[in-house]
Amino acid sequence: MAQHLVVVGGDAAGMSAASQARRRRGPEELRITAFERGSFTSYSACGIPYWVGGEVAERDALIARTPEQHRARDIDLRMRTEVTAIDPAGRRVRSRDLATGAERWTGYDQLVLATGAEPVRPALPGFDAPGVHGVHTLDDGQALLETLARFDPRGVGRPERAWHAVVVGGGYIGIEMAEAMLLRGYRVTLVHRTPEPMPGLDPDLGVLVRRALERLGVEVVPGAEATEVLLGADGRPRAVRSTAGEHPADLVVLGLGARPRTELARAAGLALGVHGGLRTDPTMRVLDADGARVPGLWAGGDCVEVLHLVSGRHEHVALGTHANKQGLVIGRNLGGDAAQFPGVVGTAITKVCDLEIARTGLNERQAAAAGLRWTAAVIESTAQAGYFPDAAWMTVKLLAEQGSGRLLGLQIVGGAGAAKRIDVAAVALGCRLTVEQLVFQDLAYAPPFSPVWDPVLVAARKAAGQLGRM
Amino acid sequence: MAQHLVVVGGDAAGMSAASQARRRRGPEELRITAFERGSFTSYSACGIPYWVGGEVAERDALIARTPEQHRARDIDLRMRTEVTAIDPAGRRVRSRDLATGAERWTGYDQLVLATGAEPVRPALPGFDAPGVHGVHTLDDGQALLETLARFDPRGVGRPERAWHAVVVGGGYIGIEMAEAMLLRGYRVTLVHRTPEPMPGLDPDLGVLVRRALERLGVEVVPGAEATEVLLGADGRPRAVRSTAGEHPADLVVLGLGARPRTELARAAGLALGVHGGLRTDPTMRVLDADGARVPGLWAGGDCVEVLHLVSGRHEHVALGTHANKQGLVIGRNLGGDAAQFPGVVGTAITKVCDLEIARTGLNERQAAAAGLRWTAAVIESTAQAGYFPDAAWMTVKLLAEQGSGRLLGLQIVGGAGAAKRIDVAAVALGCRLTVEQLVFQDLAYAPPFSPVWDPVLVAARKAAGQLGRM
Repeated sequence: MAQHLVVVGGDAAGMSAASQARRRRGPEELRITAFERGSFTSYSACGIPYWVGGEVAERDALIARTPEQHRARDIDLRMRTEVTAIDPAGRRVRSRDLATGAERWTGYDQLVLATGAEPVRPALPGFDAPGVHGVHTLDDGQALLETLARFDPRGVGRPERAWHAVVVGGGYIGIEMAEAMLLRGYRVTLVHRTPEPMPGLDPDLGVLVRRALERLGVEVVPGAEATEVLLGADGRPRAVRSTAGEHPADLVVLGLGARPRTELARAAGLALGVHGGLRTDPTMRVLDADGARVPGLWAGGDCVEVLHLVSGRHEHVALGTHANKQGLVIGRNLGGDAAQFPGVVGTAITKVCDLEIARTGLNERQAAAAGLRWTAAVIESTAQAGYFPDAAWMTVKLLAEQGSGRLLGLQIVGGAGAAKRIDVAAVALGCRLTVEQLVFQDLAYAPPFSPVWDPVLVAARKAAGQLGRM
Repeated sequence: MAQHLVVVGGDAAGMSAASQARRRRGPEELRITAFERGSFTSYSACGIPYWVGGEVAERDALIARTPEQHRARDIDLRMRTEVTAIDPAGRRVRSRDLATGAERWTGYDQLVLATGAEPVRPALPGFDAPGVHGVHTLDDGQALLETLARFDPRGVGRPERAWHAVVVGGGYIGIEMAEAMLLRGYRVTLVHRTPEPMPGLDPDLGVLVRRALERLGVEVVPGAEATEVLLGADGRPRAVRSTAGEHPADLVVLGLGARPRTELARAAGLALGVHGGLRTDPTMRVLDADGARVPGLWAGGDCVEVLHLVSGRHEHVALGTHANKQGLVIGRNLGGDAAQFPGVVGTAITKVCDLEIARTGLNERQAAAAGLRWTAAVIESTAQAGYFPDAAWMTVKLLAEQGSGRLLGLQIVGGAGAAKRIDVAAVALGCRLTVEQLVFQDLAYAPPFSPVWDPVLVAARKAAGQLGRM
């Protein structure tokens, strides 16, 4: 008789696992049921800011695979159906059809938990009002676009001032949404906690992001905690109050990060890590508090913690690329292969208008937290040969460990062609290269693409020099 | 008493070595004399096509460091002075002042040979006529610009046809010069030997380059050997004859590659490798025929052969980035460090108008020559998320070794943002990663920069699948 695979969560990790398992095991061997409480499967949450900003015209462009496409591959996909309990001992899950309210138990042989993350929404006055928007799901994006449609951002009909958007949070989503709201014609205020935006960068590079935002007309309010959304008579935002003052707001966008969505797992008595995520081994099997595998239980995507290969610690890194890889690993293992997800090095990239931003490995705060001793080298260069027309400037900051000379991390802020160079450091971190080894990597050189010494290598040379190794 | 370092050749390798040695040893410890037979030092030969094409306005923009700048660092630089003999046993070199004809011997303690490469120019009728141009040195570029100035490329005064340029050779220089001549308003014919242009690529990717050239209006004549430059009454080109016919030509550009310039070394009895280049150990000390170090003798840049880390063979790879690194290694060693140049993986990159082209490692021809067994995976993807506005297409070809699964090489042809991804594979080759290891590298993902699976990883997944490893 066929085994039964049950998947909780119909996005990247869950449906990659289901698809990969299906590629390897036909319906006669493996029955697959997947539960998704929302209305969409397998979509690009990372694309939402570009859809909201109008660069991507259609919501459906963000959907990599529809429910129908999954069903065509013999996956019994239950949309708008929420899993309300899991029972690992009894190997069953309880689900509720959100349309009818009907509940039922479903038995499984193997269970994949891919419940994702939930955006942080402060339990503070006004934060749950209409017009205060997260941008975590396609439904969130749709709701924000509906709010945008209420206003004419050019200020017609409200001549005393332009329309204002306040973005709360200065990380990736925050600055991407700041750009999106600029593109929609809003005056934008960015309220964030840290001294500079982009806390994944050290402040000496974050300041470059702040200046770029300010040049674009964004009012950046650093070091401030949003404490209240003040509502007008219509029950919608009129301002955001922060520890730095009051900021006019016709709408509010929240970009405060996300936590693993693991209430189900916690309620089922499963062990969670310090960041609240499920812990797995490299095969993506769920571990209990003693580090033993929970029989038949797998997890991947934004609900798990991952091994950071540089710090050696487990971190929560909500990112589609990891979710996809982890889903691949789960699906291969369910299909009889022996696959492992080795971990992450903390690579991330974004842009705000023409400014490219990327980081990988550890920044200074993280290196300190990991108890490491390091040197930091900062260099300025160009992304193309310096004499090339319109060569874009870029700033590179590299951290290397004292003693070993091992590369610890890289940060890049710059113009066109700058940021994707971070991948060189990502692979170098994965291979635990020293900065001297990095200097001699055979990177591509031609004037339209790079100076003769690629900026990443220049930073590595400088760090090696500071360590007395070059 | 100070030691005496003599450098032969004032470009990247030689002057990097001199500068690095000077940083570590002051004039009281180390006297440095450098001979350069030309009029320029430390310039970007790779930039010449962009200068000729008009994208880089000024010749001097290509000069990284002038003779005066070198002299300011206590380097006794003799310009327009050709070294005519080296005497390793007597530790001296003979030089001729090209202005006065005066010759003299100069003793040395340490000698750096950085004589570069010489462009291939066939000993066939007409190839030495005025109007037949190499593009190897700044003087070459200047001469070509002077020829361009003779013509009005729009055809004024010669109404029966537009002006024609024939480019001989379909490698990097050939296609870069084809673009440059297009930018100058010429009709361009590209005559080359191989079935498709860009022999560093396999023909299934080279065909994409040919089609792009043809779309730009270049007449591509593949599989043809140029046999004669036919001259008009003015002693200048009127056509190029090839094994495929006769091609009208008002000027001819040669892009037939370059050989190590090692006549001096050969005349001095030094051993040369199969490609005619000097052989060195990883410290860049010159080796004799028995593999022993020749006392006091160093070499770097386009005149040496380098270890190819994937094939394990020694190759001649004339490229400024290697020359600079080798010069750094020599200079560090002369300064008392212990530095090594580990070798290359064969990375190269270029573009023709909007088409980006890159390769690293081994292509199929090279893999066969190295006696390897491989699988080749070809994939199509986009350089940004597929739904992103103006996402550029790209084709990636990946070679992996059968048995070991080791990455052997990567080739990329595509639009904006495609080619510099080759660096991921370059580092992976340097670290001898398998394709499964490559799949799990933590590459940067955000919609403006990449699909959720970076195209390089997609190619690695496909190859791993073909090898039954995924």
